Amino acid sequence: MMIRPHNIDTFFNPDGVAIIGASEQEGTVGYVISKNFIEGNYKGNVYPVSLSAKKVLGVKAYKTILDIQEKVDLAVIAIPAKYVNQVLLECAKKGVKSCVVISGGFSETGEVERENELKKIVNDTGIRVIGPNCVGVLDTKSKVDTIFLPEDRMGRPKKGGIGMISQSGAFVAAILDWASGEGVGMSKVISFGNKADVNYSDLIDYLSSDMETHVITIYMEGVGDGRKFMRAAKKSVVNKPIIILKSGRSKAGAAAAASHTGSLAGADTVYTAAFKQSGIIRVYAPNEMFNISKAFLCLKKPKGRNVAIITDGGGTGVIATDNLEDWNVELASIGEDTKERMRSKLPPYCSVKNPIDLTGDANAERYEMALNEVLNDENVDAVLLIMLFQVPTLEDDITERLIPIIKASDKPVFVISQGGEYSRKKLSEFEEKCVPCYQSSRNAVQALSALMDYYDFIKKKEL
Amino acid sequence: MMIRPHNIDTFFNPDGVAIIGASEQEGTVGYVISKNFIEGNYKGNVYPVSLSAKKVLGVKAYKTILDIQEKVDLAVIAIPAKYVNQVLLECAKKGVKSCVVISGGFSETGEVERENELKKIVNDTGIRVIGPNCVGVLDTKSKVDTIFLPEDRMGRPKKGGIGMISQSGAFVAAILDWASGEGVGMSKVISFGNKADVNYSDLIDYLSSDMETHVITIYMEGVGDGRKFMRAAKKSVVNKPIIILKSGRSKAGAAAAASHTGSLAGADTVYTAAFKQSGIIRVYAPNEMFNISKAFLCLKKPKGRNVAIITDGGGTGVIATDNLEDWNVELASIGEDTKERMRSKLPPYCSVKNPIDLTGDANAERYEMALNEVLNDENVDAVLLIMLFQVPTLEDDITERLIPIIKASDKPVFVISQGGEYSRKKLSEFEEKCVPCYQSSRNAVQALSALMDYYDFIKKKEL
Repeated sequence: MMIRPHNIDTFFNPDGVAIIGASEQEGTVGYVISKNFIEGNYKGNVYPVSLSAKKVLGVKAYKTILDIQEKVDLAVIAIPAKYVNQVLLECAKKGVKSCVVISGGFSETGEVERENELKKIVNDTGIRVIGPNCVGVLDTKSKVDTIFLPEDRMGRPKKGGIGMISQSGAFVAAILDWASGEGVGMSKVISFGNKADVNYSDLIDYLSSDMETHVITIYMEGVGDGRKFMRAAKKSVVNKPIIILKSGRSKAGAAAAASHTGSLAGADTVYTAAFKQSGIIRVYAPNEMFNISKAFLCLKKPKGRNVAIITDGGGTGVIATDNLEDWNVELASIGEDTKERMRSKLPPYCSVKNPIDLTGDANAERYEMALNEVLNDENVDAVLLIMLFQVPTLEDDITERLIPIIKASDKPVFVISQGGEYSRKKLSEFEEKCVPCYQSSRNAVQALSALMDYYDFIKKKEL
Repeated sequence: MMIRPHNIDTFFNPDGVAIIGASEQEGTVGYVISKNFIEGNYKGNVYPVSLSAKKVLGVKAYKTILDIQEKVDLAVIAIPAKYVNQVLLECAKKGVKSCVVISGGFSETGEVERENELKKIVNDTGIRVIGPNCVGVLDTKSKVDTIFLPEDRMGRPKKGGIGMISQSGAFVAAILDWASGEGVGMSKVISFGNKADVNYSDLIDYLSSDMETHVITIYMEGVGDGRKFMRAAKKSVVNKPIIILKSGRSKAGAAAAASHTGSLAGADTVYTAAFKQSGIIRVYAPNEMFNISKAFLCLKKPKGRNVAIITDGGGTGVIATDNLEDWNVELASIGEDTKERMRSKLPPYCSVKNPIDLTGDANAERYEMALNEVLNDENVDAVLLIMLFQVPTLEDDITERLIPIIKASDKPVFVISQGGEYSRKKLSEFEEKCVPCYQSSRNAVQALSALMDYYDFIKKKEL
């Protein structure tokens, strides 16, 4: 067996991209992909390949990939399935390193022989393939974008630290679109469909050493080679957290997964145990992925599980306190000195007992004081900062005043606020500075708990 | 003891409103409340009462309530606590039926004697009091709005079927603001602070027979007179669902609740049992309240627990199926005839086995066909309709084409879609026609399960 070069990086940072099946006909897959590369922000060389067109969107087109004289690292293939393997051989001959095969019509429609032939080409030539039957790759930095869903239907997220690997293309489409609407930043996103070649472990390895990616998120139905996956995950988890949404948990769900991607979902308890043992964070809904990812992007490591809650609404303080118990997080016992100092600076109707209630006439000064106090208290490992911005006494510049205090501390501070237009504006000011914000204390506490679990795991690992 | 008239309706539909403590000074409570009534959409007579002003926002002001000649049903009192009881006596003398006492400075700050005196006035005169120490009342139909948080900080929701009772003012402020941002409609909202007079059972009784309210939601720390509360709730639950977020569940949360509103949270298991026995729906986070309320607003009663899932993304179908098991909902066994008919009308790569996968090139015609088929299948009690609008083959008029089918059926249909701008636009088209929409299948399934539990309870009750 020949030693195959990894060649994963050329999917994201290719020197030359060929679009095989490029088209000017609106509504086709070849059109959307051509548009992404030619009219989008991609800066590299693009070579449309088309049997009929002389030009595609103003760029010279070629009959076959072998007609291109320049270097081509990446080929995006969107042509009828029956021609794919022939074209793959041509790509190999041309020296292409990586192919994204968008085309469906392989094992998922019963064409197992065709997929086996594709695998053989991969093995014989060393070319790397993402797909077939996939939406492929999005890189928010290099602007490689093979996703054939048009921008008016599916927004593209901005640059950010979350990488994603998904078996399901629909899942990725919905998530990218949602992330673009919410202003959530992502780094590299891969949906690999039938995963005939490039698989979880290749991509985990790659994202693990990718400078743009700080958190790896995965949507998975079945894992395939479990041993290889676990080895890659275990190695990577020490560098950066891995968050997995594994579906097919229930009996009916497993049956549905089998009919969807042919995945053998396997006994769910086995996954739970394996994930836990490897420090992988398991989630059960897409929004949990992002709530937890955000927590890691603040790049603060809690030393323990003791949390101070500061609020301007007593009720929301009580709800947050309830949530701590659900997620095995402790309400910190604030030091007597700290409490004494806070008491001397607050009106008598405020409560300095954790949760600290600055009450409905709180202003920025109270928040600054209380936040500084608890961050300097050695009994506190993290802070939940609840702010109901509906209260008019909270000055508009409160965000500017609190952000430096939050940034100066090595303890994580999460902001919780539920509300409408004004509140969201304030939250976005925090988020721009990488302060994680949540509309519900439950989501914040779950994320904080995951952060604590992860660094606990890493600490034990290092001992 | 005199028999007291209920007089709750005059809080919402008063003939004449006096604002005691009205003010033109921006930033004061008296100013915001005056503005709400005078410059808002309130149509009735408003009488500012002020010691100093001759006019407030262009409306003639009075020195005391006794100087007003016209009828006054409702007085909103926002003056220093020490004058409140005297003014309440004047209100009674004037024939005022209902008072919202905004002012704080009663039992919550240790002034127990002052609150006892207020209670005595209530008992002696029959006047009804919401508060003291509260944000009071919002009625989206009559436009009574005593909430002293300005509109640029706290949006007001549109008219709708959700009523809310809350012990915490901050909770209400955050929720109203959030609902206004999300386009969630509400009917009547009451936050009663120290609840010296009007309490849960009065308000549950009232909302139970209120034509504008279809669902009653409650935020509660402690219940006070548990027996009375349960009696009112049991009576009301037969008319309309009651959804309660009860905080102070955990030991630390209960302690926080005690210091917040002096509530004895009591053993949480007692609440859980009592709620269950009475058919009350318990939730654990604010967003659950609304997710479940929405389900009831569609006014469809599922006959059983068997659900059909229709999707254009296999992965999202698998995730939804997993969620069914979590919430004790069944994946329906679609009838063989139904499957046969669907199979004959769909491409071979679609799956007609539940979850029904119309795949990534689905169009409106496939959805119309499949939705009609499952709604007509007696094995199906409800439908989860997953639509990933990122797919360009889904025609823009799909909402117009599916809404009549959904409305014509007596089975609940919930739409699930995650995405950005375009998807949200499509969802809002469904929501305008009272089709409940969710961004995650977990939220949809939880809501559907609550709907099923409720009608199950009612059915058993009726037997």
